[in-house]
Amino acid sequence: MTRITAVEISDVRFPTSLSMDGSDAMNKDGDYSATYVALRTDDPELSGFGFTFTIGRGNDVCCLAAEHRAAPLVGRDVATVVGDLGATYRDLKSDSQMRWLGPDKGVEHLALAAVMNAVWDLAARAAGKPLWRLLVDMTPEELVDATDLTYLSDVLTRDEAVALLTELAPTRAERIATLEETGYPCYTTSAGWLGYSDDKLRRLCAEAVASGYSHIKLKVGANLEDDIRRCSIAREVIGPDVHLMIDANQVWDVPQAIAWVKELAQFDPLWIEEPTSPDDVLGHAAVRRAVAPIGVATGEHGMNRVLFKQMFQAGAIDFCQLDSARLASINEIVAVYLMAKKFDVPVCPHAGGVGLCELVQHLSVFDYVAVSGTVENRVTEYVDHLHEHFTDPCIVEDGAYRLPSLPGYSAEMHAASVAEYTYPDGSYWATRHPGGPVGAAAPAAV
Amino acid sequence: MTRITAVEISDVRFPTSLSMDGSDAMNKDGDYSATYVALRTDDPELSGFGFTFTIGRGNDVCCLAAEHRAAPLVGRDVATVVGDLGATYRDLKSDSQMRWLGPDKGVEHLALAAVMNAVWDLAARAAGKPLWRLLVDMTPEELVDATDLTYLSDVLTRDEAVALLTELAPTRAERIATLEETGYPCYTTSAGWLGYSDDKLRRLCAEAVASGYSHIKLKVGANLEDDIRRCSIAREVIGPDVHLMIDANQVWDVPQAIAWVKELAQFDPLWIEEPTSPDDVLGHAAVRRAVAPIGVATGEHGMNRVLFKQMFQAGAIDFCQLDSARLASINEIVAVYLMAKKFDVPVCPHAGGVGLCELVQHLSVFDYVAVSGTVENRVTEYVDHLHEHFTDPCIVEDGAYRLPSLPGYSAEMHAASVAEYTYPDGSYWATRHPGGPVGAAAPAAV
Repeated sequence: MTRITAVEISDVRFPTSLSMDGSDAMNKDGDYSATYVALRTDDPELSGFGFTFTIGRGNDVCCLAAEHRAAPLVGRDVATVVGDLGATYRDLKSDSQMRWLGPDKGVEHLALAAVMNAVWDLAARAAGKPLWRLLVDMTPEELVDATDLTYLSDVLTRDEAVALLTELAPTRAERIATLEETGYPCYTTSAGWLGYSDDKLRRLCAEAVASGYSHIKLKVGANLEDDIRRCSIAREVIGPDVHLMIDANQVWDVPQAIAWVKELAQFDPLWIEEPTSPDDVLGHAAVRRAVAPIGVATGEHGMNRVLFKQMFQAGAIDFCQLDSARLASINEIVAVYLMAKKFDVPVCPHAGGVGLCELVQHLSVFDYVAVSGTVENRVTEYVDHLHEHFTDPCIVEDGAYRLPSLPGYSAEMHAASVAEYTYPDGSYWATRHPGGPVGAAAPAAV
Repeated sequence: MTRITAVEISDVRFPTSLSMDGSDAMNKDGDYSATYVALRTDDPELSGFGFTFTIGRGNDVCCLAAEHRAAPLVGRDVATVVGDLGATYRDLKSDSQMRWLGPDKGVEHLALAAVMNAVWDLAARAAGKPLWRLLVDMTPEELVDATDLTYLSDVLTRDEAVALLTELAPTRAERIATLEETGYPCYTTSAGWLGYSDDKLRRLCAEAVASGYSHIKLKVGANLEDDIRRCSIAREVIGPDVHLMIDANQVWDVPQAIAWVKELAQFDPLWIEEPTSPDDVLGHAAVRRAVAPIGVATGEHGMNRVLFKQMFQAGAIDFCQLDSARLASINEIVAVYLMAKKFDVPVCPHAGGVGLCELVQHLSVFDYVAVSGTVENRVTEYVDHLHEHFTDPCIVEDGAYRLPSLPGYSAEMHAASVAEYTYPDGSYWATRHPGGPVGAAAPAAV
């Protein structure tokens, strides 16, 4: 019997605020960070890795929450933990005292995501398969047993969930073969961070088109004149046939979102992303009605499956951008994919950050092979940062993710990266910024 | 000049799981706890106290988040901090890195609530007034300047907010005089915790009616047969004229909620509280349509003002039960009261827990005097536990809260209580439970 012997939680922070990578109208100076979880076993060859993504300060709060969430795993039999992933999820989630701090949202949910991501990574490694293949090799019943359908039965019963997965089961192999040839289509956000100069924007847009991207995303929302100028540059460089998406990162109220997007409609955006509060289902529905045919996209801050259920019920979004480190791992993500299928909303996962691209490539493959069966209107985010810290980094060629092939969820970071960027005692922080965090918004000293 | 010299954060936990006080269908063994904040100044006579309420494990996570949130206050001039309470709130909330962990929900928002509750307590103490009087002495413009209207302008503009408050300003004094005579009506939840025996339920219901209560609440949702028997006992004891409310604490899916409540309709409940996920606006609206004329109530887990905005827009609730320690203090609570006024939904604040009754009495007085001008359909929760730990405990007589009269938000705990129940090193925990927390759901040892 192989047992889980230890849980290691690391507060890993990268100083991205120094280069304005990741800058947008709401998040001006994030230090991209991970609450990084390693589940060790008494087999030195077998560990499970997972994380949630944050943007700096407060990552220690997530780490403390993850310690609590993961503690019950220590001492357990690996075969039992990965043999019933629904039971493991329900057990870790069931602590009613911790539930009060959410439920299913904020720090506690991010922490559960980190821990369950590590459990799923462990399961895939134990099975010797990349995570997407572990999922598509599960029967519809097995997958639904691992899925959290709580609070969803008004739109998705267990029987419906099984039926949705059963429909495409016989043809899974064909679609795997297709993806092995083509990869899964993605778009780039790396060209359009708000803190980049016009020249850099122009150069990066040209490079993106040359690299084969058919979709490019720009950050907007801080200043209307700037947005008009930057969208104009982008559209000029990419031409009329490449899709342009715009992303406001939640800075607007609903009436302001509608007015602002109408000013940018001249640049023919495919979607407006995060026009307002991520919690505002009815607000997104109102924006969508007002700005059609421009689509509405949101989800990277979609806190849980109940929020997405309502987004679908209300007809609030054209594109569902679920987040692999904010939803509580596969157990919750599958539920969102199944509801999206039922409501015919394409899922285009949020990525970027630290390691999110590594995770979501598995999800998009799973979606195509087992749930939606199509890549129409679907394109997964790709951001070209921080992949060098991962042992099995995603590979993007010609605007498409290549299928991951190594066992696991591609979630493992190099031990040297963890050691260097652990905050505040890792070698980077201890030697380069011994006085504390970087970033203009660093809190006043206590 | 008086400065804030220190922030003290205490992890205070009471072993309520031992007596099943507070037990319900979702929360079977809470240890009622507080993330307790004390803002010290260089005037030994002036401090500010605040807290958020949790039910045990994870309270340390809230404490860490509160430390981060409160840190920028240290060294600041008290007059500046309390002189512009909107600016202080916006400043503490503005950290974009921490925002990622919510936004405006979960641990981070609970922590902001704890800190801003302490700031408002400090403001009221500095003014020498109970908090409710500080609020009703503010002009409509001053109060709106302190209110967070972000993401609300589709239902409530600044001008509307000022107009709503201006309407009742000339007659505030009359209503204060009324309340000084009658107090503010409340109901009791102390009779109906799920873990109590039938005999205890019967005795407590009889005592509640004898004490002058016209409203009594029972926990339901674990077992339908038990609920029918317990509701039958309660209705028999209290008679047909006393209102009976039932509370399921989120245990049902939407279809199950509708079916279960219809089974309990025979006992003529005034409202069904928390029938399903607190995030499910459209679900509550569906339940409400199905179970009318039984009212739908929710709000103790209502995470922020955007959630309440949608509850009002969707016609999802008959009673708004906002929580004084989950919303980020007065700055957000006033926004919810104003929207409730506009949508004509009575606010009946959630209370109980640790010190929530002490806080909400101020809110209900403020509502009657400055916002709604009526107590019709309004009744504030009262639970008779843990008041002995507060220096200015609420006083309830004949089913009504007496007006608080001492300066502050009634949020200060006795120093001896804090010392005794601080976890895990306070004298209670160190001597009585040196091995760790009580409660059947204590996590496995690491």
